[in-house]
Amino acid sequence: MQQRHRYDTKLARILCEASTIFAEKGYDGASVRDISAATGVSLSGLYYYVRSKEDLLFMIQKHCFDTLLEQLVKDLEGVDEPVDRLEVIVRNHLRFFVDNMSEMKVLSHEAEVLTGEYRTQIALRKREYVAAVQACVDQLALDQDPTDRRVATFALFGMMNWIYTWYRPGKDIPVDRLSATVLQIFLGGVGTPHPVESFARGVIPEGGKTSRWMEP
Amino acid sequence: MQQRHRYDTKLARILCEASTIFAEKGYDGASVRDISAATGVSLSGLYYYVRSKEDLLFMIQKHCFDTLLEQLVKDLEGVDEPVDRLEVIVRNHLRFFVDNMSEMKVLSHEAEVLTGEYRTQIALRKREYVAAVQACVDQLALDQDPTDRRVATFALFGMMNWIYTWYRPGKDIPVDRLSATVLQIFLGGVGTPHPVESFARGVIPEGGKTSRWMEP
Repeated sequence: MQQRHRYDTKLARILCEASTIFAEKGYDGASVRDISAATGVSLSGLYYYVRSKEDLLFMIQKHCFDTLLEQLVKDLEGVDEPVDRLEVIVRNHLRFFVDNMSEMKVLSHEAEVLTGEYRTQIALRKREYVAAVQACVDQLALDQDPTDRRVATFALFGMMNWIYTWYRPGKDIPVDRLSATVLQIFLGGVGTPHPVESFARGVIPEGGKTSRWMEP
Repeated sequence: MQQRHRYDTKLARILCEASTIFAEKGYDGASVRDISAATGVSLSGLYYYVRSKEDLLFMIQKHCFDTLLEQLVKDLEGVDEPVDRLEVIVRNHLRFFVDNMSEMKVLSHEAEVLTGEYRTQIALRKREYVAAVQACVDQLALDQDPTDRRVATFALFGMMNWIYTWYRPGKDIPVDRLSATVLQIFLGGVGTPHPVESFARGVIPEGGKTSRWMEP
Protein backbone atom coordinates (compact mmCIF):
# COMPACT_ATOMS: atom_id res chain seq x y z
CA MET A 1 0.00 0.00 0.00
CA GLN A 2 2.74 2.42 1.01
CA GLN A 3 4.52 1.44 -2.21
CA ARG A 4 1.38 2.10 -4.28
CA HIS A 5 0.86 5.52 -2.71
CA ARG A 6 4.43 6.55 -3.48
CA TYR A 7 3.97 5.42 -7.09
CA ASP A 8 0.82 7.53 -7.53
CA THR A 9 2.35 10.60 -5.93
CA LYS A 10 5.37 10.45 -8.18
CA LEU A 11 3.27 9.85 -11.29
CA ALA A 12 1.04 12.82 -10.37
CA ARG A 13 4.07 15.04 -10.03
CA ILE A 14 5.38 13.87 -13.40
CA LEU A 15 2.04 14.55 -15.12
CA CYS A 16 1.72 18.03 -13.57
CA GLU A 17 5.23 19.03 -14.62
CA ALA A 18 4.65 17.56 -18.08
CA SER A 19 1.46 19.67 -18.49
CA THR A 20 3.34 22.83 -17.59
CA ILE A 21 6.11 22.02 -20.06
CA PHE A 22 3.73 21.04 -22.86
CA ALA A 23 1.83 24.29 -22.26
CA GLU A 24 5.02 26.34 -22.39
CA LYS A 25 6.89 24.68 -25.24
CA GLY A 26 4.10 22.90 -27.10
CA TYR A 27 4.03 19.11 -27.39
CA ASP A 28 6.35 19.06 -30.40
CA GLY A 29 8.83 21.42 -28.84
CA ALA A 30 9.01 19.57 -25.49
CA SER A 31 11.18 16.53 -24.92
CA VAL A 32 11.06 13.77 -22.32
CA ARG A 33 14.48 15.12 -21.37
CA ASP A 34 12.87 18.51 -20.46
CA ILE A 35 10.39 16.71 -18.23
CA SER A 36 13.16 14.72 -16.64
CA ALA A 37 15.03 17.95 -15.88
CA ALA A 38 11.92 19.66 -14.43
CA THR A 39 10.92 16.74 -12.21
CA GLY A 40 14.41 15.66 -11.22
CA VAL A 41 13.43 12.11 -12.21
CA SER A 42 16.04 10.40 -14.40
CA LEU A 43 15.14 9.42 -17.97
CA SER A 44 15.14 5.72 -17.11
CA GLY A 45 13.08 6.56 -14.01
CA LEU A 46 10.53 8.35 -16.21
CA TYR A 47 10.22 5.38 -18.53
CA TYR A 48 9.27 3.28 -15.52
CA TYR A 49 6.09 5.40 -15.21
CA VAL A 50 5.28 6.22 -18.83
CA ARG A 51 6.08 4.49 -22.08
CA SER A 52 6.54 7.54 -24.28
CA LYS A 53 5.89 11.25 -24.69
CA GLU A 54 2.55 10.38 -26.33
CA ASP A 55 1.69 8.21 -23.33
CA LEU A 56 2.29 11.25 -21.10
CA LEU A 57 0.00 13.43 -23.22
CA PHE A 58 -2.66 10.71 -23.19
CA MET A 59 -2.54 10.35 -19.40
CA ILE A 60 -2.86 14.11 -18.91
CA GLN A 61 -5.89 14.31 -21.22
CA LYS A 62 -7.50 11.17 -19.78
CA HIS A 63 -7.15 12.31 -16.17
CA CYS A 64 -8.50 15.76 -17.01
CA PHE A 65 -11.62 14.46 -18.72
CA ASP A 66 -12.16 11.79 -16.08
CA THR A 67 -11.95 14.34 -13.27
CA LEU A 68 -14.22 16.81 -15.07
CA LEU A 69 -16.84 14.17 -15.86
CA GLU A 70 -16.80 12.52 -12.44
CA GLN A 71 -17.22 15.86 -10.68
CA LEU A 72 -19.98 16.92 -13.07
CA VAL A 73 -22.00 13.73 -12.59
CA LYS A 74 -21.63 14.10 -8.82
CA ASP A 75 -22.63 17.79 -8.80
CA LEU A 76 -25.62 17.24 -11.11
CA GLU A 77 -27.15 14.61 -8.82
CA GLY A 78 -30.59 15.74 -7.71
CA VAL A 79 -30.45 18.97 -9.77
CA ASP A 80 -33.41 18.94 -12.17
CA GLU A 81 -34.08 22.40 -13.57
CA PRO A 82 -32.17 23.07 -16.83
CA VAL A 83 -31.07 26.52 -15.62
CA ASP A 84 -29.72 25.03 -12.40
CA ARG A 85 -28.02 22.23 -14.31
CA LEU A 86 -26.37 24.82 -16.54
CA GLU A 87 -25.08 26.66 -13.50
CA VAL A 88 -23.53 23.41 -12.26
CA ILE A 89 -21.97 22.75 -15.68
CA VAL A 90 -20.47 26.23 -16.05
CA ARG A 91 -19.11 26.34 -12.51
CA ASN A 92 -17.67 22.86 -12.69
CA HIS A 93 -15.96 23.59 -16.01
CA LEU A 94 -14.59 27.00 -15.08
CA ARG A 95 -13.47 26.02 -11.60
CA PHE A 96 -11.62 23.08 -13.03
CA PHE A 97 -9.85 25.01 -15.75
CA VAL A 98 -9.07 28.09 -13.68
CA ASP A 99 -7.30 25.70 -11.34
CA ASN A 100 -5.65 23.93 -14.26
CA MET A 101 -4.76 26.56 -16.86
CA SER A 102 -1.79 24.65 -18.28
CA GLU A 103 -3.94 21.58 -18.82
CA MET A 104 -6.58 23.67 -20.62
CA LYS A 105 -3.96 24.99 -23.00
CA VAL A 106 -2.64 21.46 -23.58
CA LEU A 107 -6.15 20.11 -24.17
CA SER A 108 -6.89 22.90 -26.66
CA HIS A 109 -3.61 23.00 -28.54
CA GLU A 110 -2.72 19.32 -28.60
CA ALA A 111 -6.19 17.93 -29.29
CA GLU A 112 -5.14 16.41 -32.61
CA VAL A 113 -1.78 14.96 -31.63
CA LEU A 114 -2.84 11.58 -30.23
CA THR A 115 -3.11 8.61 -32.56
CA GLY A 116 -4.69 5.15 -32.58
CA GLU A 117 -6.14 3.77 -29.35
CA TYR A 118 -5.04 6.86 -27.40
CA ARG A 119 -7.06 9.05 -29.75
CA THR A 120 -10.12 6.77 -29.59
CA GLN A 121 -10.10 6.75 -25.79
CA ILE A 122 -9.94 10.54 -25.51
CA ALA A 123 -12.51 11.10 -28.26
CA LEU A 124 -14.92 8.85 -26.32
CA ARG A 125 -14.57 10.86 -23.12
CA LYS A 126 -14.81 14.16 -24.98
CA ARG A 127 -17.98 13.04 -26.75
CA GLU A 128 -19.52 11.99 -23.45
CA TYR A 129 -18.72 15.35 -21.87
CA VAL A 130 -20.00 17.40 -24.84
CA ALA A 131 -23.18 15.28 -24.92
CA ALA A 132 -23.87 16.08 -21.25
CA VAL A 133 -23.61 19.82 -21.98
CA GLN A 134 -25.59 19.53 -25.22
CA ALA A 135 -28.44 17.75 -23.38
CA CYS A 136 -28.74 20.71 -21.03
CA VAL A 137 -28.62 23.29 -23.84
CA ASP A 138 -31.30 21.30 -25.68
CA GLN A 139 -33.56 21.62 -22.65
CA LEU A 140 -32.97 25.36 -22.52
CA ALA A 141 -33.79 25.94 -26.18
CA LEU A 142 -36.36 23.25 -26.89
CA ASP A 143 -38.13 25.08 -29.70
CA GLN A 144 -35.00 25.83 -31.67
CA ASP A 145 -33.48 24.02 -34.60
CA PRO A 146 -31.04 21.27 -33.46
CA THR A 147 -28.38 22.85 -35.70
CA ASP A 148 -28.60 26.12 -33.80
CA ARG A 149 -28.59 24.28 -30.48
CA ARG A 150 -25.35 22.59 -31.51
CA VAL A 151 -23.87 26.01 -32.35
CA ALA A 152 -25.08 27.31 -28.98
CA THR A 153 -23.27 24.49 -27.18
CA PHE A 154 -20.01 25.29 -28.92
CA ALA A 155 -20.58 29.00 -28.25
CA LEU A 156 -20.81 28.13 -24.55
CA PHE A 157 -17.62 26.07 -24.71
CA GLY A 158 -16.00 28.97 -26.57
CA MET A 159 -16.88 31.47 -23.85
CA MET A 160 -15.51 29.11 -21.20
CA ASN A 161 -12.43 27.72 -22.93
CA TRP A 162 -11.17 30.99 -24.36
CA ILE A 163 -10.25 32.07 -20.83
CA TYR A 164 -6.91 30.33 -21.26
CA THR A 165 -5.89 33.26 -23.51
CA TRP A 166 -6.79 36.12 -21.17
CA TYR A 167 -7.77 35.10 -17.63
CA ARG A 168 -5.11 35.48 -14.94
CA PRO A 169 -6.06 33.48 -11.82
CA GLY A 170 -5.62 35.56 -8.69
CA LYS A 171 -5.54 38.84 -10.66
CA ASP A 172 -8.84 38.81 -12.56
CA ILE A 173 -12.30 38.42 -11.01
CA PRO A 174 -12.84 35.29 -8.88
CA VAL A 175 -14.02 32.19 -10.70
CA ASP A 176 -17.54 32.29 -9.20
CA ARG A 177 -18.13 35.77 -10.57
CA LEU A 178 -16.63 34.72 -13.90
CA SER A 179 -19.04 31.77 -13.96
CA ALA A 180 -21.98 34.03 -13.13
CA THR A 181 -21.10 36.41 -15.99
CA VAL A 182 -20.83 33.58 -18.51
CA LEU A 183 -24.12 32.12 -17.25
CA GLN A 184 -25.85 35.46 -17.47
CA ILE A 185 -24.75 36.10 -21.05
CA PHE A 186 -25.65 32.61 -22.15
CA LEU A 187 -29.05 32.70 -20.46
CA GLY A 188 -30.14 36.29 -20.91
CA GLY A 189 -27.66 38.19 -23.06
CA VAL A 190 -25.19 40.92 -22.26
CA GLY A 191 -27.64 43.69 -21.39
CA THR A 192 -29.28 42.02 -18.39
CA PRO A 193 -28.70 43.08 -14.75
CA HIS A 194 -25.58 42.27 -12.82
CA PRO A 195 -24.97 38.54 -13.00
CA VAL A 196 -23.88 37.85 -9.45
CA GLU A 197 -27.15 39.19 -8.06
CA SER A 198 -29.46 37.79 -10.69
CA PHE A 199 -28.03 34.38 -11.47
CA ALA A 200 -26.01 33.14 -8.54
CA ARG A 201 -28.75 30.73 -7.56
CA GLY A 202 -26.47 28.91 -5.20
CA VAL A 203 -27.06 25.39 -6.48
CA ILE A 204 -23.52 24.55 -5.53
CA PRO A 205 -21.75 26.51 -2.80
CA GLU A 206 -19.51 29.47 -3.64
CA GLY A 207 -15.72 29.32 -3.44
CA GLY A 208 -13.71 27.18 -1.07
CA LYS A 209 -13.36 24.06 -3.15
CA THR A 210 -10.27 23.58 -5.23
CA SER A 211 -10.33 21.27 -8.19
CA ARG A 212 -6.77 20.61 -9.16
CA TRP A 213 -7.08 17.45 -11.28
CA MET A 214 -4.15 16.03 -9.37
CA GLU A 215 -2.30 17.28 -6.38
CA PRO A 216 1.32 17.79 -7.44
CA MET B 1 4.94 48.02 -61.94
CA GLN B 2 4.69 44.58 -63.53
CA GLN B 3 7.69 43.63 -61.42
CA ARG B 4 6.01 44.90 -58.26
CA HIS B 5 2.81 42.95 -58.95
CA ARG B 6 4.71 39.72 -59.49
CA TYR B 7 6.53 40.30 -56.19
CA ASP B 8 3.26 40.77 -54.26
CA THR B 9 1.61 37.74 -55.83
CA LYS B 10 4.51 35.51 -54.96
CA LEU B 11 4.75 36.86 -51.40
CA ALA B 12 1.00 36.30 -50.94
CA ARG B 13 1.36 32.69 -52.05
CA ILE B 14 4.28 32.18 -49.67
CA LEU B 15 2.33 33.64 -46.72
CA CYS B 16 -0.75 31.54 -47.46
CA GLU B 17 1.24 28.32 -47.69
CA ALA B 18 3.16 29.23 -44.56
CA SER B 19 -0.13 29.73 -42.64
CA THR B 20 -1.34 26.30 -43.68
CA ILE B 21 1.92 24.69 -42.62
CA PHE B 22 2.11 26.57 -39.30
CA ALA B 23 -1.51 25.52 -38.63
CA GLU B 24 -0.74 21.87 -39.41
CA LYS B 25 2.66 21.43 -37.80
CA GLY B 26 2.75 24.30 -35.32
CA TYR B 27 5.30 27.08 -35.60
CA ASP B 28 7.99 25.12 -33.77
CA GLY B 29 7.44 21.98 -35.80
CA ALA B 30 7.50 23.74 -39.18
CA SER B 31 10.70 24.64 -40.99
CA VAL B 32 11.44 27.15 -43.73
CA ARG B 33 12.39 24.05 -45.72
CA ASP B 34 8.77 22.76 -45.41
CA ILE B 35 7.49 26.06 -46.76
CA SER B 36 9.99 25.93 -49.57
CA ALA B 37 8.76 22.44 -50.50
CA ALA B 38 5.07 23.47 -50.35
CA THR B 39 5.50 26.61 -52.45
CA GLY B 40 8.09 25.24 -54.87
CA VAL B 41 10.18 28.35 -54.10
CA SER B 42 13.84 27.54 -53.37
CA LEU B 43 15.29 28.31 -49.93
CA SER B 44 17.39 31.16 -51.32
CA GLY B 45 14.32 32.36 -53.22
CA LEU B 46 12.33 32.41 -49.96
CA TYR B 47 14.99 34.45 -48.19
CA TYR B 48 14.60 37.08 -50.88
CA TYR B 49 11.04 37.67 -49.63
CA VAL B 50 11.35 37.04 -45.89
CA ARG B 51 14.25 37.33 -43.48
CA SER B 52 13.38 34.44 -41.19
CA LYS B 53 10.65 32.08 -40.00
CA GLU B 54 9.71 34.65 -37.36
CA ASP B 55 9.44 37.27 -40.10
CA LEU B 56 6.96 34.98 -41.88
CA LEU B 57 4.86 34.58 -38.74
CA PHE B 58 4.93 38.34 -38.16
CA MET B 59 3.80 39.10 -41.72
CA ILE B 60 0.91 36.63 -41.45
CA GLN B 61 -0.28 38.13 -38.15
CA LYS B 62 0.20 41.70 -39.35
CA HIS B 63 -1.72 41.21 -42.59
CA CYS B 64 -4.54 39.43 -40.77
CA PHE B 65 -5.04 42.18 -38.21
CA ASP B 66 -4.65 44.91 -40.82
CA THR B 67 -7.28 43.34 -43.06
CA LEU B 68 -9.68 42.74 -40.17
CA LEU B 69 -9.33 46.29 -38.85
CA GLU B 70 -9.54 48.00 -42.25
CA GLN B 71 -12.68 46.09 -43.17
CA LEU B 72 -14.24 46.77 -39.76
CA VAL B 73 -13.65 50.51 -39.92
CA LYS B 74 -15.11 50.56 -43.44
CA ASP B 75 -18.20 48.53 -42.49
CA LEU B 76 -18.86 50.54 -39.33
CA GLU B 77 -18.99 53.83 -41.22
CA GLY B 78 -22.41 55.44 -40.77
CA VAL B 79 -23.64 52.65 -38.43
CA ASP B 80 -24.61 54.26 -35.12
CA GLU B 81 -26.81 51.93 -33.06
CA PRO B 82 -24.76 49.69 -30.71
CA VAL B 83 -26.79 46.61 -31.71
CA ASP B 84 -26.16 47.29 -35.40
CA ARG B 85 -22.51 47.95 -34.74
CA LEU B 86 -22.28 44.62 -32.93
CA GLU B 87 -23.81 42.88 -35.93
CA VAL B 88 -21.14 44.43 -38.15
CA ILE B 89 -18.39 43.39 -35.73
CA VAL B 90 -19.56 39.76 -35.42
CA ARG B 91 -20.12 39.32 -39.16
CA ASN B 92 -16.82 40.90 -40.10
CA HIS B 93 -14.93 38.74 -37.61
CA LEU B 94 -16.66 35.46 -38.44
CA ARG B 95 -16.60 35.97 -42.21
CA PHE B 96 -12.92 36.70 -42.08
CA PHE B 97 -12.01 33.70 -39.98
CA VAL B 98 -14.34 31.23 -41.70
CA ASP B 99 -12.50 32.18 -44.87
CA ASN B 100 -9.15 31.95 -43.11
CA MET B 101 -9.32 29.04 -40.69
CA SER B 102 -5.59 28.26 -40.81
CA GLU B 103 -4.76 31.84 -39.98
CA MET B 104 -7.16 31.76 -37.02
CA LYS B 105 -5.40 28.70 -35.63
CA VAL B 106 -2.01 30.33 -36.16
CA LEU B 107 -3.16 33.57 -34.50
CA SER B 108 -4.53 31.63 -31.51
CA HIS B 109 -1.74 29.11 -31.04
CA GLU B 110 1.28 31.21 -31.89
CA ALA B 111 0.22 34.40 -30.13
CA GLU B 112 3.18 34.31 -27.76
CA VAL B 113 5.94 33.33 -30.18
CA LEU B 114 6.92 36.72 -31.56
CA THR B 115 9.60 38.75 -29.80
CA GLY B 116 10.91 42.32 -29.72
CA GLU B 117 9.62 44.79 -32.31
CA TYR B 118 7.53 42.09 -34.01
CA ARG B 119 5.68 41.47 -30.75
CA THR B 120 5.16 45.18 -30.09
CA GLN B 121 3.73 45.76 -33.56
CA ILE B 122 1.23 42.91 -33.30
CA ALA B 123 0.26 43.79 -29.71
CA LEU B 124 -0.56 47.31 -30.91
CA ARG B 125 -2.91 46.10 -33.63
CA LYS B 126 -4.52 43.56 -31.34
CA ARG B 127 -5.15 46.20 -28.68
CA GLU B 128 -6.73 48.49 -31.26
CA TYR B 129 -9.02 45.72 -32.47
CA VAL B 130 -10.05 44.61 -28.97
CA ALA B 131 -10.68 48.26 -28.02
CA ALA B 132 -13.08 48.68 -30.95
CA VAL B 133 -15.09 45.64 -29.81
CA GLN B 134 -14.93 46.69 -26.15
CA ALA B 135 -16.31 50.15 -27.01
CA CYS B 136 -19.35 48.51 -28.58
CA VAL B 137 -19.90 46.11 -25.66
CA ASP B 138 -19.61 49.07 -23.26
CA GLN B 139 -22.45 50.79 -25.11
CA LEU B 140 -24.60 47.66 -24.87
CA ALA B 141 -24.08 47.21 -21.13
CA LEU B 142 -23.72 50.78 -19.92
CA ASP B 143 -25.01 50.14 -16.41
CA GLN B 144 -22.70 47.23 -15.69
CA ASP B 145 -19.40 47.13 -13.90
CA PRO B 146 -16.44 47.72 -16.29
CA THR B 147 -14.91 44.46 -15.03
CA ASP B 148 -17.95 42.49 -16.16
CA ARG B 149 -18.00 44.33 -19.49
CA ARG B 150 -14.41 43.28 -20.04
CA VAL B 151 -15.36 39.67 -19.31
CA ALA B 152 -18.30 40.03 -21.72
CA THR B 153 -15.95 41.19 -24.49
CA PHE B 154 -13.71 38.17 -24.03
CA ALA B 155 -16.77 35.91 -23.86
CA LEU B 156 -17.78 37.28 -27.27
CA PHE B 157 -14.30 36.67 -28.66
CA GLY B 158 -14.44 33.18 -27.17
CA MET B 159 -17.71 32.33 -28.91
CA MET B 160 -16.29 33.57 -32.20
CA ASN B 161 -12.73 32.31 -32.03
CA TRP B 162 -13.51 28.85 -30.70
CA ILE B 163 -15.00 27.99 -34.12
CA TYR B 164 -11.52 27.00 -35.27
CA THR B 165 -11.92 23.83 -33.17
CA TRP B 166 -15.30 22.66 -34.51
CA TYR B 167 -16.61 24.61 -37.52
CA ARG B 168 -16.16 23.01 -40.93
CA PRO B 169 -16.65 25.60 -43.71
CA GLY B 170 -18.96 24.25 -46.42
CA LYS B 171 -20.31 21.48 -44.13
CA ASP B 172 -21.68 23.39 -41.15
CA ILE B 173 -24.27 26.20 -41.28
CA PRO B 174 -23.36 29.19 -43.50
CA VAL B 175 -21.40 31.96 -41.87
CA ASP B 176 -24.29 34.45 -41.86
CA ARG B 177 -26.43 32.05 -39.84
CA LEU B 178 -23.51 31.33 -37.56
CA SER B 179 -23.10 35.08 -37.02
CA ALA B 180 -26.82 35.47 -36.31
CA THR B 181 -26.71 32.71 -33.68
CA VAL B 182 -23.70 34.21 -31.92
CA LEU B 183 -25.34 37.66 -32.02
CA GLN B 184 -28.58 36.30 -30.66
CA ILE B 185 -26.91 34.55 -27.73
CA PHE B 186 -24.77 37.56 -26.90
CA LEU B 187 -27.70 39.99 -27.12
CA GLY B 188 -30.59 37.98 -25.74
CA GLY B 189 -29.42 34.63 -24.43
CA VAL B 190 -29.92 31.11 -25.70
CA GLY B 191 -33.67 30.82 -25.12
CA THR B 192 -34.76 33.62 -27.49
CA PRO B 193 -36.47 33.04 -30.87
CA HIS B 194 -34.68 31.86 -33.96
CA PRO B 195 -31.77 34.21 -34.60
CA VAL B 196 -31.99 34.49 -38.36
CA GLU B 197 -35.51 35.87 -38.12
CA SER B 198 -35.06 38.00 -35.06
CA PHE B 199 -31.62 39.48 -35.40
CA ALA B 200 -30.62 39.54 -39.06
CA ARG B 201 -31.21 43.26 -39.27
CA GLY B 202 -29.43 43.45 -42.57
CA VAL B 203 -27.00 46.21 -41.71
CA ILE B 204 -24.52 44.64 -44.09
CA PRO B 205 -25.72 42.47 -46.97
CA GLU B 206 -25.89 38.68 -46.61
CA GLY B 207 -23.39 36.34 -48.25
CA GLY B 208 -21.58 37.04 -51.49
CA LYS B 209 -18.49 38.73 -50.19
CA THR B 210 -15.39 36.70 -49.55
CA SER B 211 -12.76 37.96 -47.20
CA ARG B 212 -9.63 35.97 -47.81
CA TRP B 213 -6.96 38.17 -46.23
CA MET B 214 -4.86 37.59 -49.31
CA GLU B 215 -5.64 35.91 -52.58
CA PRO B 216 -3.24 33.00 -52.95
